[in-house]
Amino acid sequence: MLSENTINESAHISAQVAIPRHVPGETDPVTDDEVFHGHEGGKLSVAATRPISQPRDLSVAYTPGVAKVSSAIAAESSQAARYTWANRLVAVVSDGTAVLGLGDIGASASLPVMEGKSVLFKSFADLDSIPLVLDTSDPDEIVETLVRMRPSFGAVNLEDISAPRCFEIEEKAKAALDCPVFHDDQHGTAVVVLAALYGANAVRGRSLSEQRVVISGAGASGVACARILLAAGAADVTVLDSRGIIHADRTGLNPVKADLAAHANRAGLRGGIAEAMRGADVFLGLSGSTIEQSLLATMADDPVVFALSNPEPEVHPEVAARYASVVATGRSDFCNQINNVLAFPGIFRGALDAGATEITENMKLAAADAIFQTATDELAAEAIVPSPLDPRVAPEVAAAVARAADGDGVT
Amino acid sequence: MLSENTINESAHISAQVAIPRHVPGETDPVTDDEVFHGHEGGKLSVAATRPISQPRDLSVAYTPGVAKVSSAIAAESSQAARYTWANRLVAVVSDGTAVLGLGDIGASASLPVMEGKSVLFKSFADLDSIPLVLDTSDPDEIVETLVRMRPSFGAVNLEDISAPRCFEIEEKAKAALDCPVFHDDQHGTAVVVLAALYGANAVRGRSLSEQRVVISGAGASGVACARILLAAGAADVTVLDSRGIIHADRTGLNPVKADLAAHANRAGLRGGIAEAMRGADVFLGLSGSTIEQSLLATMADDPVVFALSNPEPEVHPEVAARYASVVATGRSDFCNQINNVLAFPGIFRGALDAGATEITENMKLAAADAIFQTATDELAAEAIVPSPLDPRVAPEVAAAVARAADGDGVT
Repeated sequence: MLSENTINESAHISAQVAIPRHVPGETDPVTDDEVFHGHEGGKLSVAATRPISQPRDLSVAYTPGVAKVSSAIAAESSQAARYTWANRLVAVVSDGTAVLGLGDIGASASLPVMEGKSVLFKSFADLDSIPLVLDTSDPDEIVETLVRMRPSFGAVNLEDISAPRCFEIEEKAKAALDCPVFHDDQHGTAVVVLAALYGANAVRGRSLSEQRVVISGAGASGVACARILLAAGAADVTVLDSRGIIHADRTGLNPVKADLAAHANRAGLRGGIAEAMRGADVFLGLSGSTIEQSLLATMADDPVVFALSNPEPEVHPEVAARYASVVATGRSDFCNQINNVLAFPGIFRGALDAGATEITENMKLAAADAIFQTATDELAAEAIVPSPLDPRVAPEVAAAVARAADGDGVT
Repeated sequence: MLSENTINESAHISAQVAIPRHVPGETDPVTDDEVFHGHEGGKLSVAATRPISQPRDLSVAYTPGVAKVSSAIAAESSQAARYTWANRLVAVVSDGTAVLGLGDIGASASLPVMEGKSVLFKSFADLDSIPLVLDTSDPDEIVETLVRMRPSFGAVNLEDISAPRCFEIEEKAKAALDCPVFHDDQHGTAVVVLAALYGANAVRGRSLSEQRVVISGAGASGVACARILLAAGAADVTVLDSRGIIHADRTGLNPVKADLAAHANRAGLRGGIAEAMRGADVFLGLSGSTIEQSLLATMADDPVVFALSNPEPEVHPEVAARYASVVATGRSDFCNQINNVLAFPGIFRGALDAGATEITENMKLAAADAIFQTATDELAAEAIVPSPLDPRVAPEVAAAVARAADGDGVT
């Protein structure tokens, strides 16, 4: 069911976060000193929701009082949702195998990213979360560990896990756990890309159903973007990995790429990036490589370029703007920043508020639509998505996701 | 090494917590309403140490800034201690097999107790901790899970795990993890009992080395109390389980009891509680059973009775006071409350401040001495230990434990 105070509870964020609009070039890059100082001692702390100052507080929060609460949960397990923090707690889980653009740097080195994620969950959706970084990269061991810890949390955000392992781990974790499991590098990116494409299409008066999208990169985010774009009704999606266009005649494809070969590339294109780009409406860069200007010139009229690799986009946005009518990157120092933080805080908040047992395709589509709707006030070619710090987004996403969960009957 | 600001950092607690002195009978018992209301939504939340309000904050705490910190840790793993919260984070771990006096009620039902523990860590030692309740009771699986999660935390507080499994789990976890591991039901109780006995002895002008202690109960706390009392120089310790005195001729003893048979009961006593109590100086009740008044009458002159079972002590303290010169219980509504909260916050704080890789016997003995020293100001037969809410205790314990860690060379 929907928590009746979903919106009001989330709305307090507006008191915490100002609404900035990015002004490209205005911000100096952060310095190393600033970054390391900002991480001294770590970025998280745990607080008690009610202070202990008198013997009575101790008797309520700990012994003897706590025995009554434990007994109540032992008698009726659903009481845990009411009287513990588990039901509103997200486990931010990584094995450190694909950390940002740094690769397999291990669990401990991934922890600052996971702490950062927890900071964002708190800042944007007032959601508690704990980083759990695992010193194993075996998919079955990762899932087994989550199953053992299941009573400790209410949802799992998988993060920075390498492809194609991430697909297997998410699939197995979803099957093994009766709570939301969401690999943000896949679905968070996919939701925000879809929202941004809605925005770009609204600016240009175009429809997704008449567009062919080229996705450079068949990792976690490339695969998830292909899937959500097809689910949202894109005319066609052509995905490329390092060997070129993924198509039905390719051999040695892993199961995820084989699935793409079967469902994407309906036009049956063959070849490489040049063949894919010719006549394409949308270029989506998620590969960490570069794309030649000359190929942008071969796209359809009025094209869209999302060059999302970080820190170096596939093409500089000023160069892309010579060919495309809408350009986006993942960077905060250019307009149209496509940042997962627009999606994951609200998605988890909505799923937990609704008591959802999973995050369905409809919940993701609803999140993308809610992000787009929030952008429509100020929609422009340089403002196809809201600012990552826009405090209106997470509550709107949460509400839409919770409604979709109810609609899908997963609550 | 010792953190130079150990004491100053801990000293802020005095601003949070008043120093109450228990007045027996003064406090009304807490009501069910009060208890359940105090648990609504759980007792913990996660906070960001630095708020996100501007794009720059996002660039420092998350991308792109965080990549520099992750890279630094990948290059030099010791940097994780400085730039993540793991090194100051305690995992409060339970499988829910021996929760308070409620028995094996499972992981989820144990969570309120673990949340309470985290509240106490925060309130008394400004230490962050997360409850991790595990849906497995297999000792090897529990240890394996902790090993996999090792990069996520800096120390492990094992809690409410049934005996004799708790001994095996602690031993294996200590061997497998390069960080402090401490089963509080064993060692927290043992440290506070030793501190209280120091207090009782100071009041009566007696020495531990001339005393024989009877321990009723050979579970987690009984075994640990026997061990620490022997380590601290007690003349003898006689431990009883449900079958009577544990002695060298008993068969079918588990390894822990066999060890007690070899090292405790130096007098070679045989029989049951009557034989054990005759001439004993100290009775320590940790069994949940009762003890007859007539047996208290058979103790040595000027005896000590610690009736620590909760919620019903082995003998009502007013009855025990007819025979004993010093009486203590685990309850907050009588004087001399023996409560683990006097020990564990300071012990973990000291161990983490010192960068200790384990918690040694000397660190525990130092903790007991520090608790006793804090009590000496107001020492009396009704005040052999400080109040559980005395804010002076945890900083003193932390400092003493950190010094002992340095002394033992485990930092």
